[in-house]
Amino acid sequence: MTRADLTEKVYEAKRAKGLAWKEICRKIDPKASPVLLTAALLGQMKLEPAEAKKAEQVLGLPKGSAALLAEVPYRGPLPSVPPTDPLIYRFYELIQVYGTTWKELIQEEFGDGIMSAIDFEMKIERLPDPKGDRVKIAMSGKFLPYKRY
Amino acid sequence: MTRADLTEKVYEAKRAKGLAWKEICRKIDPKASPVLLTAALLGQMKLEPAEAKKAEQVLGLPKGSAALLAEVPYRGPLPSVPPTDPLIYRFYELIQVYGTTWKELIQEEFGDGIMSAIDFEMKIERLPDPKGDRVKIAMSGKFLPYKRY
Amino acid sequence: MTRADLTEKVYEAKRAKGLAWKEICRKIDPKASPVLLTAALLGQMKLEPAEAKKAEQVLGLPKGSAALLAEVPYRGPLPSVPPTDPLIYRFYELIQVYGTTWKELIQEEFGDGIMSAIDFEMKIERLPDPKGDRVKIAMSGKFLPYKRY
Amino acid sequence: MTRADLTEKVYEAKRAKGLAWKEICRKIDPKASPVLLTAALLGQMKLEPAEAKKAEQVLGLPKGSAALLAEVPYRGPLPSVPPTDPLIYRFYELIQVYGTTWKELIQEEFGDGIMSAIDFEMKIERLPDPKGDRVKIAMSGKFLPYKRY
Amino acid sequence: MTRADLTEKVYEAKRAKGLAWKEICRKIDPKASPVLLTAALLGQMKLEPAEAKKAEQVLGLPKGSAALLAEVPYRGPLPSVPPTDPLIYRFYELIQVYGTTWKELIQEEFGDGIMSAIDFEMKIERLPDPKGDRVKIAMSGKFLPYKRY
Amino acid sequence: MTRADLTEKVYEAKRAKGLAWKEICRKIDPKASPVLLTAALLGQMKLEPAEAKKAEQVLGLPKGSAALLAEVPYRGPLPSVPPTDPLIYRFYELIQVYGTTWKELIQEEFGDGIMSAIDFEMKIERLPDPKGDRVKIAMSGKFLPYKRY
Amino acid sequence: MTRADLTEKVYEAKRAKGLAWKEICRKIDPKASPVLLTAALLGQMKLEPAEAKKAEQVLGLPKGSAALLAEVPYRGPLPSVPPTDPLIYRFYELIQVYGTTWKELIQEEFGDGIMSAIDFEMKIERLPDPKGDRVKIAMSGKFLPYKRY
Amino acid sequence: MTRADLTEKVYEAKRAKGLAWKEICRKIDPKASPVLLTAALLGQMKLEPAEAKKAEQVLGLPKGSAALLAEVPYRGPLPSVPPTDPLIYRFYELIQVYGTTWKELIQEEFGDGIMSAIDFEMKIERLPDPKGDRVKIAMSGKFLPYKRY
Amino acid sequence: MTRADLTEKVYEAKRAKGLAWKEICRKIDPKASPVLLTAALLGQMKLEPAEAKKAEQVLGLPKGSAALLAEVPYRGPLPSVPPTDPLIYRFYELIQVYGTTWKELIQEEFGDGIMSAIDFEMKIERLPDPKGDRVKIAMSGKFLPYKRY
Amino acid sequence: MTRADLTEKVYEAKRAKGLAWKEICRKIDPKASPVLLTAALLGQMKLEPAEAKKAEQVLGLPKGSAALLAEVPYRGPLPSVPPTDPLIYRFYELIQVYGTTWKELIQEEFGDGIMSAIDFEMKIERLPDPKGDRVKIAMSGKFLPYKRY
Repeated sequence: MTRADLTEKVYEAKRAKGLAWKEICRKIDPKASPVLLTAALLGQMKLEPAEAKKAEQVLGLPKGSAALLAEVPYRGPLPSVPPTDPLIYRFYELIQVYGTTWKELIQEEFGDGIMSAIDFEMKIERLPDPKGDRVKIAMSGKFLPYKRY
Repeated sequence: MTRADLTEKVYEAKRAKGLAWKEICRKIDPKASPVLLTAALLGQMKLEPAEAKKAEQVLGLPKGSAALLAEVPYRGPLPSVPPTDPLIYRFYELIQVYGTTWKELIQEEFGDGIMSAIDFEMKIERLPDPKGDRVKIAMSGKFLPYKRY
Repeated sequence: MTRADLTEKVYEAKRAKGLAWKEICRKIDPKASPVLLTAALLGQMKLEPAEAKKAEQVLGLPKGSAALLAEVPYRGPLPSVPPTDPLIYRFYELIQVYGTTWKELIQEEFGDGIMSAIDFEMKIERLPDPKGDRVKIAMSGKFLPYKRY
Repeated sequence: MTRADLTEKVYEAKRAKGLAWKEICRKIDPKASPVLLTAALLGQMKLEPAEAKKAEQVLGLPKGSAALLAEVPYRGPLPSVPPTDPLIYRFYELIQVYGTTWKELIQEEFGDGIMSAIDFEMKIERLPDPKGDRVKIAMSGKFLPYKRY
Repeated sequence: MTRADLTEKVYEAKRAKGLAWKEICRKIDPKASPVLLTAALLGQMKLEPAEAKKAEQVLGLPKGSAALLAEVPYRGPLPSVPPTDPLIYRFYELIQVYGTTWKELIQEEFGDGIMSAIDFEMKIERLPDPKGDRVKIAMSGKFLPYKRY
Repeated sequence: MTRADLTEKVYEAKRAKGLAWKEICRKIDPKASPVLLTAALLGQMKLEPAEAKKAEQVLGLPKGSAALLAEVPYRGPLPSVPPTDPLIYRFYELIQVYGTTWKELIQEEFGDGIMSAIDFEMKIERLPDPKGDRVKIAMSGKFLPYKRY
Repeated sequence: MTRADLTEKVYEAKRAKGLAWKEICRKIDPKASPVLLTAALLGQMKLEPAEAKKAEQVLGLPKGSAALLAEVPYRGPLPSVPPTDPLIYRFYELIQVYGTTWKELIQEEFGDGIMSAIDFEMKIERLPDPKGDRVKIAMSGKFLPYKRY
Repeated sequence: MTRADLTEKVYEAKRAKGLAWKEICRKIDPKASPVLLTAALLGQMKLEPAEAKKAEQVLGLPKGSAALLAEVPYRGPLPSVPPTDPLIYRFYELIQVYGTTWKELIQEEFGDGIMSAIDFEMKIERLPDPKGDRVKIAMSGKFLPYKRY
Repeated sequence: MTRADLTEKVYEAKRAKGLAWKEICRKIDPKASPVLLTAALLGQMKLEPAEAKKAEQVLGLPKGSAALLAEVPYRGPLPSVPPTDPLIYRFYELIQVYGTTWKELIQEEFGDGIMSAIDFEMKIERLPDPKGDRVKIAMSGKFLPYKRY
Repeated sequence: MTRADLTEKVYEAKRAKGLAWKEICRKIDPKASPVLLTAALLGQMKLEPAEAKKAEQVLGLPKGSAALLAEVPYRGPLPSVPPTDPLIYRFYELIQVYGTTWKELIQEEFGDGIMSAIDFEMKIERLPDPKGDRVKIAMSGKFLPYKRY
């Protein structure tokens, strides 16, 4: 069983049990971010061993799944560049439109360096709006300055 | 003069005048988002005609620049896919790591549809942190449900 | 069973039962657009739960298919860019020939923004013509203006 | 002067004269489709010699432009595949989402063949709508059956 | 069974029975072009229902093959662009060397338009030659003029 | 002056003088194939020194052009793979649809080998047809058997 | 069984029997080039029917393998362009470094044309050298002049 | 002046002076390989300072060319992968057809390692042959075994 | 069983037995570099026959694995270029940022040539650091000068 | 003047003055790493303002160069992926051969995370060796653990 096979099984188990990601995540670890846990279930992050066991139970995954869920995965599941799925593509479009702006404004504020995608966290929320609710995404990453040597 | 030529001139004028993007934006329109204005100066958004004239003045751009800055640009300036610049690449990496998670969590919350990258706004801030300051990016886009017909 | 597997089964069931898409769609939901329903059966849209159950019945699909048909799919099934199939390629060719024209004329009429591909609908019809019947495609998408902020 | 150079000059002349495509097209040939004429001015269609001369005049293009505008161009101006500009990309997305559906429904109705992108015409209109005006695109292409031999 | 699976089975059946394409085609329909029929057996054209049944019989294909052979296929089987196989690559090379020439000479003779690849036929023959026999390919496609509108 | 620059000048000279390729070719060498000569003028074949001088004269090309036209060019001028221009693309489509068929039928007739694209000649003709004239292309290339060793 | 499957089986049989390519080739046909025979066993050349039968025997391949080995294969097995394997990549590197030189020197000596990769043969030898033995590759291909017509 | 600019000038100087590569190489250094020297003139190898001065003189290159010719170049001049020029492409085709064979036979003879493309030399010769002269290429590269550590 | 299948089995065996790479390597050959041995277990290097047998035992791999592990593999396992996994991507980023610098500094010090990736060794260590431990990678490759000939 | 133009000028100035990178770096800042400074001169790092002024002087660069050298560049100068230059390619090859090994060994030692390419330093040295001197590269990057949240 590869990690990609396991991701397939996670989707199937979730569908068969009629569970939402939110519920699954709450059962696995109510204190951890559902963004992080969902990413792990989809093969992009690792779970702590106890969480992994919980996930195996909650979803009724095949034996051995917990060990795999607790391993660091090979990241990057998208089947094409750029991604064809419209929801995911919009983020790629934001890079095209705002990428050079992010570079200018972040480096003007912080100096030469990057926003870490490792020491990083994010939150997704619903922002009620009379003209149509909005998706709010808040992310923060540690600024890492290029080292002088 | 193409829009890409003009972007080159904007960079040169900024460098020659020793201005920061923040200052330039404040002079062009203190009430507009500096993210939006910077993106426009870099050829990815359009300025309102009055702002465009202001920008021509502030940066001492060649005559005719205002008209070009007030036009809708052909968006997408990055010279390669994925982008090689590390600051910009990290956002691409986020799509690889979190793309499928965004899809699952947003569509679980809102139903089938996408977060608009058009009816969209964003803010970039410094988040002071004793372990190293963080870049905070908050974005919100209108949720657009797929139309049934 | 992945969504791609299910699409294969839909093609096989349709072939085995000798049904046309039109008939299948009429049986699933006579009031919904056959374009929308066919796209859903091919794994690019989702069906309402009741429609999905109907589809499972009408086509004699394996148990569990309804749940999968009612899920939001990962969109984008084409195996190459650009598509090699001549019927589909012609639409890609239209983008090459008319893409910049669409941009100019739509943005001249509506301002900066896009035609939504989400709040979108389309119809395909036969246009009788003595010199050879024509395929008529009518599409409409909500104009989404870029938000100022 | 290559055709791409001339397209640059058309954009510049239009901007300098403050003309809309609609006005330019009306002056060149009020009976021809503005979609066709704009595509020609952008280097994707050819103008009739008289139209080309008119275009040279109306836009004040350099001598020799008319001859170039009346020539068949090398079609396909987009700098990347898929196109990065959001307005144009949405059409590419439609191919990803609906391409296989078009294939099924058109070939079910007409038999094996394609919708011509050559014996083809299109119209772009504003569709007023209280929930937000819509872009309406109507296209028709002759159905071309695969020849048996 | 997908169409690609069936193509594999056609190759295997042909090998097992020791038949030449010419013989197979003659048995399926002695009046149809062997080029057309072979292309259909290789999943690039469709057979008429009677021919498809004949093909199923002649090659001893699995039940249900006839229905699949009578369907319009998704065209474009080559695993890479450009194709690596030397015989097929030479045709790609001809496009590189002669493509712009074809464009100039065909459009000089016929006006703006294309040679149809749909209303198209071809023949492959041996041309005896003392210096080494030659492959002769004769193709003809209807000229399709771009429609003015 | 590179060969690509010269090709640009050939197009410009032809346009300025209002000459057809046919006329130009007849003047350069009435006995040579206009396909070959046009390909050479477009930078894909070489002209004999006398023809090259003639071409320089007939088109009024800059001094030194003859030497360049008599050199073997670096072949392959198309700016993208596959080519976007519809007339040229249709030939690429033929490779997708018929490539595997050509391989089977040519190798069945001749054994293992290829049709040479070097010891090769072609002719383009108008085929009058009441249903619409046709483009006829006849090509022949020496069959080259793979050498046993 | 596809040709790629058979190549896998050849590798497995060779490993299981502990045979070297040299030995296998000597047993199949001691007079043929081991380069040619190995290429055939790896799915890139065809074997003569008698050789194919011998190969089936020597390697203990599944029944039917001989027929497949005697067929012309679809050539081009490398999974990526350029190839990642270092030994094979070095040849690709030689094309990058020497490609334009080969073009100049071969065409200076022979005129316009190519070195055939079909009427071609090669030999690989060990060249003892006190500073470290060398791989010697000698290849010769018929020069094919471009045909004038 | 970049190295690519200089290569352009070398081609132009050679054409203007009507010199063959052989003659140029003999004048630069009669004892060095013309393959090596031509590659250097085409920007893929470096010349020794004395040779570089000689080359500047012989070809009448602009002042400063010698310094550039004596520098290590950035190697890899081909404008596309795979190369479109037929002469150069054939070598790419050889990699496709023989790459896996080279790997097997060289590693069977020498063990795990590669043929160096750096400690490498080659020679191009005409091989007279009554059936048509042949291009003979002999190359040898030091075998480099993978280091155990 | 292909080498890629075996690599899957190695991962599974390691997970099932709960062994670390370090332990596995120590058991296979305590004197060999764990970098080299791990690379071999992941299908990128070959093991000595005795090591391979040891590996088969230690990991409880299927019979025949040892023979496969002792074979030279086809190198290059990454599923995309550039690699999507963040840990591996950072090395690709170093090439983008430092590639031209390596070229300049190595060739300034050593002359024209390369650092061998074959006669090469490396070591990975933890470098304790109060501001956060560091990964230290030390690599050395023989300098290979381009041969003059 | 873009940064790429400036890099060209740096190469030209260095060549004209006959300076080595080592000398240039020593003059700019004898305490900074020559790797870092060379990378900055090649447009991949930024110089401190004082260093930038020094660099302008030492190399005799055009006025305004210092400002540009002190700016954060858009990183990633390589014209192709993978790079064609052999010296740089070898590093790409190391990623192919050792990438998965780095992932396993670094994450086994440090847990889930990456080696930073930002908080990173490197050194290049000559390692004398009787069998041929070696290039030694030592790099260290801070280990960045994936943040739990």
